[in-house]
Amino acid sequence: MAAGTETTAPGIASYLAKRREQVDAALERLLPGPDAWPSALHRAIRHSVFAGGKRLRPILCLAAAEVLGTRNEDVLEPACGLEMIHTYSLIHDDLPALDNDDLRRGVPTCHVVFGEATAILAGDALLTHGLGVFALYPQGERFAASKIRVLETVVEAIGTRGMIGGQAADLEAEKEAAPTAELLALIHENKTGKLMRASLLSGAILAGADRETLDRVDLYGRRIGLAFQIKDDLLDVESDAATLGKASHKDAAAGKATFPGIWGIERSRQLLAENVAAAVAAASALPGGGGVLPDLARFVGARKS
Amino acid sequence: MAAGTETTAPGIASYLAKRREQVDAALERLLPGPDAWPSALHRAIRHSVFAGGKRLRPILCLAAAEVLGTRNEDVLEPACGLEMIHTYSLIHDDLPALDNDDLRRGVPTCHVVFGEATAILAGDALLTHGLGVFALYPQGERFAASKIRVLETVVEAIGTRGMIGGQAADLEAEKEAAPTAELLALIHENKTGKLMRASLLSGAILAGADRETLDRVDLYGRRIGLAFQIKDDLLDVESDAATLGKASHKDAAAGKATFPGIWGIERSRQLLAENVAAAVAAASALPGGGGVLPDLARFVGARKS
Repeated sequence: MAAGTETTAPGIASYLAKRREQVDAALERLLPGPDAWPSALHRAIRHSVFAGGKRLRPILCLAAAEVLGTRNEDVLEPACGLEMIHTYSLIHDDLPALDNDDLRRGVPTCHVVFGEATAILAGDALLTHGLGVFALYPQGERFAASKIRVLETVVEAIGTRGMIGGQAADLEAEKEAAPTAELLALIHENKTGKLMRASLLSGAILAGADRETLDRVDLYGRRIGLAFQIKDDLLDVESDAATLGKASHKDAAAGKATFPGIWGIERSRQLLAENVAAAVAAASALPGGGGVLPDLARFVGARKS
Repeated sequence: MAAGTETTAPGIASYLAKRREQVDAALERLLPGPDAWPSALHRAIRHSVFAGGKRLRPILCLAAAEVLGTRNEDVLEPACGLEMIHTYSLIHDDLPALDNDDLRRGVPTCHVVFGEATAILAGDALLTHGLGVFALYPQGERFAASKIRVLETVVEAIGTRGMIGGQAADLEAEKEAAPTAELLALIHENKTGKLMRASLLSGAILAGADRETLDRVDLYGRRIGLAFQIKDDLLDVESDAATLGKASHKDAAAGKATFPGIWGIERSRQLLAENVAAAVAAASALPGGGGVLPDLARFVGARKS
C-alpha cells in the first residue's frame, strides 16, 4: 500500500499504518481464537478478517471521531464492527452463486479454503457480531442512545435499500445489455458508498456531532465513496491481480456496470479527481480543517490496490 | 395447526391464531412491498417470510411480555425481528451448500424459486433488518437501554456461540460415524434452543423484568426449546411431508444427530413429556401462574407440524 500513497501527503502512509495496526489488534481481541468452538467456523472467519485489508472503513470511523475531538479508544470497537460487516459482504459476494471469486486480499477466498457452507456461515457470523459490536461498545448505559443511533444508521446503510440492495441490483444489471449511467450510480452508491458514509457517520455520532456537522461529514462521505468506487473500477482495468490482491479485468468480462465502461478511462479519471477535490473541500469545513480527512480522500484517489 | 392442539387446552388454538394474525400484520408493515426496489430481493424475502410459519418465536416473546404485564403493542415489532431472524436461518440452512432442502413451510424454498444468489442476499437482508428492528423499536429514547440489552441477548443467542455455531457443529457432525448424546445436546441447544430462549428473554427484558424473573423465564425457555427439538425429530420420523410442510425422514438419511437416532422413539417421547412438564412447572412460578406459557409448552409437545 505504501506505493499508493506516493502522490499524497507524506504523513498519511504512517497514519494509515498506525491505525491499521490499532484496528487489527482490536479485531484480534474481539474475535474468538482459531481453536474456540466451533473451530472450523472461527478459522474461516479469521482467515477472511486477517487476510490483510486496508481497514479503510474503520479508519474513516476513527478519523471522523478524532476530527470531532473524541479519542480513538472510545470508538475502536465500533470501528471494528464496520470491518466485520465489510468482510461479511466480501465473503458472500465472492461465493460461487454470486461473483464466484477465488482470490481476495491476495489470498484464496473463504469458500475456496473452507467450503461453501462454512463460508456462508462465516459471513452470517461476521454480520451478526459486527452489528453486535455496536450494541456492546462503547460500554456504559450513558452511551445507549448514541449506540442505538449508530445501529439505525449502519442497518439502513447495509440493508435492502443500501449495500445488499446494491448487490442485488448489480446481479440484475449483469443481465442487461447496456447498463445506464443512472443504474451504475445507483448500484455504487448503495453497494459501496453507503457503508463508507455510515462508517464516517458512526464515528461522528459517537463523538456527539450535531445535525449540521453530521451533514458535512456525510457530504465528505458521499464524495470519498464515489472516488473509491471510480478508483476501484479504474484499477480493475489498469492493474494486475498481483498488485490488486484479487482478480483484475473481471468487471468487463462479467458484463458489470463500471465507470470506465460507461464514461471511458479519461472521463473516469476526471470524475475521480473531481470527487476527491469535492471530498477535500467538504472536509475542510470541519473543525481543524478536517484533520486527516482531506489526506484520506487524496489517498483513496491515488491508491494502487 | 389446529389438529396439533387437540390434546392441549382448548383456548390455545384461538390464542395462537390471534397472535399469528397480529404478527403477520406487523411483518407486513415492517417489510417493503414486492415492488419496492430492488424488487427481486424483496419478493424473495416476502416469499419466505409469508410462507405461513407458526410464528412460535414472536409468540413466545409476546407471551413473556404479556405475563409480565406489558401490552402486546409495545413488543410487537421486536417480536417480528425474531421471526425475520428465524426466517433468515431457514433460508440459509436450506441452501444447496448446506441442507439442500427444496420444500419449507409447504412451499418451494427461496433458492428454488429465486436462485441461490438472491436467496443468500434475502437471508442476509432478513438478518440485517431483523436485528435492526430491535434498534428501532419500541421507539423513544427511554427504551434505549433495554433495546441495547435485547440486542446483546439476541446477538449472543444467534452468533458463533449460539445458532450459527450450532449449525456449524451440525455440519461437522454429519461427517462423524456416530454422534454422541453430548454432541446432540450441544447442537440442539445452540441451533434451536438459544433463539427460543432469547425470544422469551426479549419480551421479558422489554417488560422490565428483574434478574430473578429473567432466570425463571430462561428456565422455561430451555425446557420448551428442548421439547420443541425432540418433537421436531420425532415428527421427522413419524410424519409425512404433506403434514410437515417440509421433507420428512431427512435427518436419518443425512446422518444427522437426532433424539430418536440416539435414544430411540420411546425414550424420546418420554424425554419430550419430561421437558414439557418441566417447562410447565417453570412457567407456573411466574406471575399469574405464567398465563398462557404452560399451555404454549403443552402445544409445542403436541403439535403435528
